[in-house]
Amino acid sequence: MEQQVSAATKRATTYPKGQNEWYCNFSYGEAYGLGYEPGVNRRDPSNILIVGDLFYVWYTKSVGACSPRTEKDIYAKKFHWDYADVWYATSPDGIHWEEKGCAVHRGNENECDGRTVCTPDVMEHDGKFYLVYQTQRQNIAYSGSGEGTGMAVANTPDGPWEKIPGNILEPIEGGYWYGEDCENYNYGLFHGLVHDPSMMYYNGKFYLYYKCGSVSNKVLVKYAGRDTRIGVAISDSPTGPFVPHPLNPLTNSGHETMLWQYDGGVCVLLNRDGPEKDTIQYAKDGINFEIMSHVEHTPWAAGAIRTLTPDRTPLEGLRWGLCHKDEGSSPWSYIQRFDTITL
Amino acid sequence: MEQQVSAATKRATTYPKGQNEWYCNFSYGEAYGLGYEPGVNRRDPSNILIVGDLFYVWYTKSVGACSPRTEKDIYAKKFHWDYADVWYATSPDGIHWEEKGCAVHRGNENECDGRTVCTPDVMEHDGKFYLVYQTQRQNIAYSGSGEGTGMAVANTPDGPWEKIPGNILEPIEGGYWYGEDCENYNYGLFHGLVHDPSMMYYNGKFYLYYKCGSVSNKVLVKYAGRDTRIGVAISDSPTGPFVPHPLNPLTNSGHETMLWQYDGGVCVLLNRDGPEKDTIQYAKDGINFEIMSHVEHTPWAAGAIRTLTPDRTPLEGLRWGLCHKDEGSSPWSYIQRFDTITL
Repeated sequence: MEQQVSAATKRATTYPKGQNEWYCNFSYGEAYGLGYEPGVNRRDPSNILIVGDLFYVWYTKSVGACSPRTEKDIYAKKFHWDYADVWYATSPDGIHWEEKGCAVHRGNENECDGRTVCTPDVMEHDGKFYLVYQTQRQNIAYSGSGEGTGMAVANTPDGPWEKIPGNILEPIEGGYWYGEDCENYNYGLFHGLVHDPSMMYYNGKFYLYYKCGSVSNKVLVKYAGRDTRIGVAISDSPTGPFVPHPLNPLTNSGHETMLWQYDGGVCVLLNRDGPEKDTIQYAKDGINFEIMSHVEHTPWAAGAIRTLTPDRTPLEGLRWGLCHKDEGSSPWSYIQRFDTITL
Repeated sequence: MEQQVSAATKRATTYPKGQNEWYCNFSYGEAYGLGYEPGVNRRDPSNILIVGDLFYVWYTKSVGACSPRTEKDIYAKKFHWDYADVWYATSPDGIHWEEKGCAVHRGNENECDGRTVCTPDVMEHDGKFYLVYQTQRQNIAYSGSGEGTGMAVANTPDGPWEKIPGNILEPIEGGYWYGEDCENYNYGLFHGLVHDPSMMYYNGKFYLYYKCGSVSNKVLVKYAGRDTRIGVAISDSPTGPFVPHPLNPLTNSGHETMLWQYDGGVCVLLNRDGPEKDTIQYAKDGINFEIMSHVEHTPWAAGAIRTLTPDRTPLEGLRWGLCHKDEGSSPWSYIQRFDTITL
């Protein structure tokens, strides 16, 4: 039979149709008060809560320049999220922000969060506030090892925050996820680093989504950026213990993911890294994610408004938020506002 | 049977394995002499030829600021490639470039290229040089209509360039590709705008690849950016007539594509727009492209060195080149160098 369409056109029939309510574009603007400031890094904004008349956001903050990546001193500051603390800010309008102070300091030298606490996310549940964040031990090279997830709890969004002792989710020591063997990445166990946590109350339990990834630079060439994927650990209590789900990993792509609920399921925006980067996906069960749309110019490390009407449309939980800018000619990370444009 | 892996992990088995020679990363540096210059736009570099001891590149050049997109005056300059000409530069090392002058001027007011000539590509064949480029008529709103592909021929890379009269590939007047109906984009006829031409001698014929796309802004939201796809028109002679291939479109994604030959087939780098953006694809027959790797931070409007050893590795034809920067805070387009990093 004569070939009717090209291979690419045939392949296109397997993709989501372009005209659906999961498609969107993004516009960017200033987040006044959290914008570019020489000498200071602000990044990784959490989801945004509405408490009283104010919006609340938490984020990574560090000061001072980084050493070159080639620096061998293990105590040298290597990244914008190294030697950082979790700060917070409030806003009456989502555009003008006032930095209120530090919410969670990194710990003492010998603790699991002695080096840094960063990339926070926040959950409000039954009148309490839960911050989850990435931790890093001191006294080891900052190569992706010794990183886990910590938690602090407060009765008000202004604190005081009380840390749950130790990590609520531990990495595999060493931090190499299957080592150098990319061929096996599609299968097998999944744990390793525990980054970028995001927690939600879902189906009567507490779902702690997190990122794992290889720290090999070779992977940057091998796999459309880093080979990072999302997993989930589930608990009956907001403070754990959290048990990793047997079907992890739940995605095959994604770096700084953004998750929200819609219509009884969980949505995720995967920004960079991997063959399914720049997609919005949906899992009716919070576990089995399917591609709903392809997007571009996606916000990095997005945190969006925890809307009061999440089920109005699929992208209601992505309506607007904050993200960070950390590339190009600017030597300092800073926070921007994004708005999601739908039809 | 119990579910063994998540939906995403199952899907991952259908993607190219990460560790193959089609994977790469990109680094960026200065293209001295073609870099940022207030008041001037340089963009859309052609592929790079080696002639004698010099590298040659052609590109879009325009001067002066653009009017706001909302400007109703149809004569107002609307884009960086509006009211442009094709210029060229040479370099002894691929890093330091000397602008040599205009290669092809836009035409007189009533000609098919009376408004602009831009986005050139170049082919050397049997001792002659062929420039193909995008054209735009004057006296119509610059909304994507009236755009076609023109050609000029010279005996040396320094010219003089003689235009083939009229367009060598004509758009459908009006320029709307299926109008607003995205649902039908996966099928049907394919023509419309004729942008970003790239020509090569392949299988004893002349393959003129080009981009078509919808000009509807609504599509920006509907389809991961613009719905742009690549087609090809083929001729026995380098100057035409070119006949569109019946299996067009040949891709379902891609905006400013970069094409090269390898091992008897044709490779394409698709940068932005569409579900298969940021992929490198290969068609053994120049027509049926399959995804070979997923990449990121891809160069925009890339033109690469037409290497003397194209069959050494799949990415030999993408080893280094020029691309443009046209986003963010900079109001002027400018040209950068990119280098492709492989394992």
